[in-house]
Amino acid sequence: MTAPVYLDCDTGIDDALALAYLLASPLASVVGIGTVSGNVSAAVGARNTLDLLSLAGAASVPVAVGAHDPLVGSFGGGSPWVHGENGVGEVMLAPSAASVAAESAAEMLVRLARTYPGTLRAVAIGPLTNIAEALRLEPALPSLVESVTVMGGAALAPGNITPVAEANIWHDPEAAALVLAADWDVTLVPLDVTMASVLEEAHRQVLLASSAPVPRALGEMLGYYFRFYEGIYGRPCSAMHDPLAAALAVGAVKPALAPVVRAAVDTSEGPGRGQTVCDMRGLYAGYPPVSGARCRVVLSLEEEFAPHLVEALLSHFEGTTAELAGAAAI
Amino acid sequence: MTAPVYLDCDTGIDDALALAYLLASPLASVVGIGTVSGNVSAAVGARNTLDLLSLAGAASVPVAVGAHDPLVGSFGGGSPWVHGENGVGEVMLAPSAASVAAESAAEMLVRLARTYPGTLRAVAIGPLTNIAEALRLEPALPSLVESVTVMGGAALAPGNITPVAEANIWHDPEAAALVLAADWDVTLVPLDVTMASVLEEAHRQVLLASSAPVPRALGEMLGYYFRFYEGIYGRPCSAMHDPLAAALAVGAVKPALAPVVRAAVDTSEGPGRGQTVCDMRGLYAGYPPVSGARCRVVLSLEEEFAPHLVEALLSHFEGTTAELAGAAAI
Repeated sequence: MTAPVYLDCDTGIDDALALAYLLASPLASVVGIGTVSGNVSAAVGARNTLDLLSLAGAASVPVAVGAHDPLVGSFGGGSPWVHGENGVGEVMLAPSAASVAAESAAEMLVRLARTYPGTLRAVAIGPLTNIAEALRLEPALPSLVESVTVMGGAALAPGNITPVAEANIWHDPEAAALVLAADWDVTLVPLDVTMASVLEEAHRQVLLASSAPVPRALGEMLGYYFRFYEGIYGRPCSAMHDPLAAALAVGAVKPALAPVVRAAVDTSEGPGRGQTVCDMRGLYAGYPPVSGARCRVVLSLEEEFAPHLVEALLSHFEGTTAELAGAAAI
Repeated sequence: MTAPVYLDCDTGIDDALALAYLLASPLASVVGIGTVSGNVSAAVGARNTLDLLSLAGAASVPVAVGAHDPLVGSFGGGSPWVHGENGVGEVMLAPSAASVAAESAAEMLVRLARTYPGTLRAVAIGPLTNIAEALRLEPALPSLVESVTVMGGAALAPGNITPVAEANIWHDPEAAALVLAADWDVTLVPLDVTMASVLEEAHRQVLLASSAPVPRALGEMLGYYFRFYEGIYGRPCSAMHDPLAAALAVGAVKPALAPVVRAAVDTSEGPGRGQTVCDMRGLYAGYPPVSGARCRVVLSLEEEFAPHLVEALLSHFEGTTAELAGAAAI
């Protein structure tokens, strides 16, 4: 079963991993990609996405530039200290010849939802501005898509940009509030599980040693990412936020604990701004069902994620490279 | 080493346990008690406290009525569904002949801090209105007291009155914000550790079987408390919020993990109102020291608390009862 996937991203090192993972997955067919300002601007994110697609031999996947600014306020310039000035850890990717689509990211999502009614999986791994705009463009969107999976928030874990806010939500809390309040079931992949899904230096060395250019490029980007995360974990490694959301969205990875709870987003100007206020009070009784709850919060996984990620990337891209090399030799 | 203790409470079933524990502890000498509206009104809390002191043979401990209303807004009526209409689980205590003090709770705290400079331990197990008022009355209070221990808040655990707010903080967030911002080191005993410190039905049966009236009365009150907590834990038992704060304050119980972090209180009108916004982002590196941090957040204990609590109560009060019985027989 190959599911059509719309990916909304702000590429970004872990976005690059998520994109490569989705291209590699036999469970996913990436039918469109929208970008949003977050780790980098929507425009730079689109450029990085096009270049990665080209490197991966998937230049035909359409890329739409989405919102530059959040619903309220304006884009703050991204996080070069995490992702590098160019968003991909200062790795220089060969420029793709492809151009961005004429439609906006929100328009693309609505179009794809109508093209693949009931089967499209929306995977949002950046701020939720485009998803909120798509909900405005097409109020029936919730009944058109198969699922919405969001990398974002923190349920019981600390935040990563404030003590309680995770970056994707914090960059556009108003959009996130609309997305969590819409008439659909949302799967939230928060820091609780992504910070526990760690790619280690040994994994990175495997990617760097690959015969294929995509794993090698990802391994190089991760060198930059690791330097940031060394300040958090105390060793060279990194969380796997975005690729984990992608893997959960296509069902390649199963949650071990993922209660369905009520969730809201703090859009106040207080110290909780950008927090995903998830009602986790069922914790002590094993999270009994809650009437009216719509947000599935992934807290833990059945299996470790990083080994699966590395294996999926190598298995696909080394196969692809072998074919390409074979073709070139003819 | 017996430390002078000022107890600020809203008695309350677990307040009753904390009071009895402090009276029982060889490490504490309770030199004054102030009450505040929380579980019950400040006036009812004072009445319950006087009656408990009388039952415990400690009627000479002065009790001052504190703030009826929080700094902003007004008292909401308490939580009879948790503590009973009378605050002590509908247990009828014999009325004490003693009266409340002429001073307010805040005045008492300031007076005691001057009487025991550098040694007074303030233990706050209700909303922080009185402590905030004492800080206004005596700005030098932080340099006069030995320590401030607060039962309140939630660092990484869910809240208990909203998804993110714990009741003591939620009932007066503005006061809590002043207390956490003052120029002293505060120990926060949050739901993270109190919800993990559970008194079971077997412990309660030991109290009920005691030859002494105080443990028996506490065992009866706990029957009421257990009925509320059965909805949370799925079995008859209860968290030990207030007595744990008391035991930590006098050093009878040691924390296993208690990072010192920056902490603020959400006083916005958003969904985070009343949250103790503790910066727990050091989690992944074992909480390295944070410059300027003042709030010690107790997350776990070296030993289980409930057995110590039960043993301390029986050891003291059965001894007392035996003496009293002997005296009465003469």
